[in-house]
Amino acid sequence: MKALLCSKGMVKLADVPMPVLGLDEVLIRVKLAGICNTDNQILAGYRDFNGILGHEFVGIVESDPQGELTGKRVVGSITIACGNCWHCRRDQTSHCLNRITVGINNRDGVFAEYVTMPRRNVHIVPDSISDREAVLTEPLAAGMRVAEQVHILPTDRVVILGDGKMGLLAALVLRAMGNDITVVGKHEDKLSIATGMGLKTAKVGEMSGPVDVVVECTGSVTGLDTAINLVRAGGTIVLKTTTVDTYQIDLSPIVVREITLVGSRCGPFEPAVALMERHNVDLSDLVEAVYPLDQGVEALKHARRKGARKVLISIE
Amino acid sequence: MKALLCSKGMVKLADVPMPVLGLDEVLIRVKLAGICNTDNQILAGYRDFNGILGHEFVGIVESDPQGELTGKRVVGSITIACGNCWHCRRDQTSHCLNRITVGINNRDGVFAEYVTMPRRNVHIVPDSISDREAVLTEPLAAGMRVAEQVHILPTDRVVILGDGKMGLLAALVLRAMGNDITVVGKHEDKLSIATGMGLKTAKVGEMSGPVDVVVECTGSVTGLDTAINLVRAGGTIVLKTTTVDTYQIDLSPIVVREITLVGSRCGPFEPAVALMERHNVDLSDLVEAVYPLDQGVEALKHARRKGARKVLISIE
Repeated sequence: MKALLCSKGMVKLADVPMPVLGLDEVLIRVKLAGICNTDNQILAGYRDFNGILGHEFVGIVESDPQGELTGKRVVGSITIACGNCWHCRRDQTSHCLNRITVGINNRDGVFAEYVTMPRRNVHIVPDSISDREAVLTEPLAAGMRVAEQVHILPTDRVVILGDGKMGLLAALVLRAMGNDITVVGKHEDKLSIATGMGLKTAKVGEMSGPVDVVVECTGSVTGLDTAINLVRAGGTIVLKTTTVDTYQIDLSPIVVREITLVGSRCGPFEPAVALMERHNVDLSDLVEAVYPLDQGVEALKHARRKGARKVLISIE
Repeated sequence: MKALLCSKGMVKLADVPMPVLGLDEVLIRVKLAGICNTDNQILAGYRDFNGILGHEFVGIVESDPQGELTGKRVVGSITIACGNCWHCRRDQTSHCLNRITVGINNRDGVFAEYVTMPRRNVHIVPDSISDREAVLTEPLAAGMRVAEQVHILPTDRVVILGDGKMGLLAALVLRAMGNDITVVGKHEDKLSIATGMGLKTAKVGEMSGPVDVVVECTGSVTGLDTAINLVRAGGTIVLKTTTVDTYQIDLSPIVVREITLVGSRCGPFEPAVALMERHNVDLSDLVEAVYPLDQGVEALKHARRKGARKVLISIE
């Protein structure tokens, strides 16, 4: 089958053997895949991953040895837990100490005609959700993780700091949960996308505090400083940004102003699918381009453009 | 009256006028006062405070214009809120934007024969609590603030990181709430005090994680790194340390391991008094020395000794 193969930071279209079903796994024919910043970070050396790239997808189950999933349209959560470590024994499987991550760590990804997945990682997509929505389940779930971690009150003012893809998704999720959201960013053009989605926006420096909750999605280490300046005493900052950079920080405002910082990573697939099914989120403006698998290398290059929205790879 | 007066970082015993009662205030004759690290930090230049030093005390109400408090033994919470700012209007008076802090910011403190306090800052001390316990209400409340902010489960393993006064008080409070506590520190001699209080102890490096909650009371900016290494993914670090130093930190473990950081400052007086009344905490080992007011300058010097426990000033 055809696949986008990553080796030593280089990516190319290659002919590779069909994946072989493991115990309690299903074989999925990939229809549509999404490019995540992490994919390009892997090409830049993050995690030293070699194999088929990609972890966001929607596809059709081609073969399920148990039968029941065959022919179903599905998405798949990317963390494969060992089931037996300190965290797994406490139902904290997303933090499994031996975890394998599809397309990121020790397992082939989804930029390919076929992929295998453990049955328990697979989620059926209702018919009312389009492929172009379903392929965004993983980043949408990362946005929903915020609502899962922080109890946002009806009276709370919430700022999404950062006008990139993660910021927009988090804003759409929290608005769908009924929260009072403002997207705060630096770029007129990106903020205008948010405005087009009916979101309130403000430029950094023009947003007046105090704010109860700040969701920091800037992708920059300095975002935390801006967040600390915006949040009220006793308020909460959700950190979504991971970078390899360390950062000089003054911790005392966090103590004196009793700020809570919450690290936030991947989220739950089932509620993300349910949110899309209720059609409370319109994700259509998030997609910028769709490339066929043959042009996958160009698609990855496109996704690296500054300010690029979602780039998809179609595999039909 | 006699008082310990701080002026431009110098402290001396002085004769000063009796304080004058403001609206809705009471006059208190101070019996016993406690020296806090903040007092010595003020002498080292923190906050540029000039006036009578001190904010931890127990005393007898000498005069209450409304009568009901006259003759009562009381402690007093140190933050005087404006009642009208953004935070006060939301019942977050400890974060009042115009707050005055007894002996720290814009108001004379308690290292004196008499002090005035707003009625609502005054808390009656039940007879079963000794003066030497009552004088510790403020730091004990700071320890209780942890239990107020973080929902610690019966199954949680808790580490108090730091074997100083704040660490011991936090450990006593959380043990009194039924939590599984280990005090982790660097100093054999200080840890032996904790052991003497019946607390479990371990030296840094000998404590094996993962731990669900770490209360960081080291007083050093590098304590956060140790805390991050001890806490489990999804766990909570409570930050008690304020320093003027900034610190180079790698934020990505906080995001990837979904750690929550909670800044924690002052705490509630009423529950602290109630905890002492239930006699679930034995604070007697915390006091190292008692000086008369005349020797207040020496008392402050004693409190600066490395590893010193609580030093008190008796004003009877």
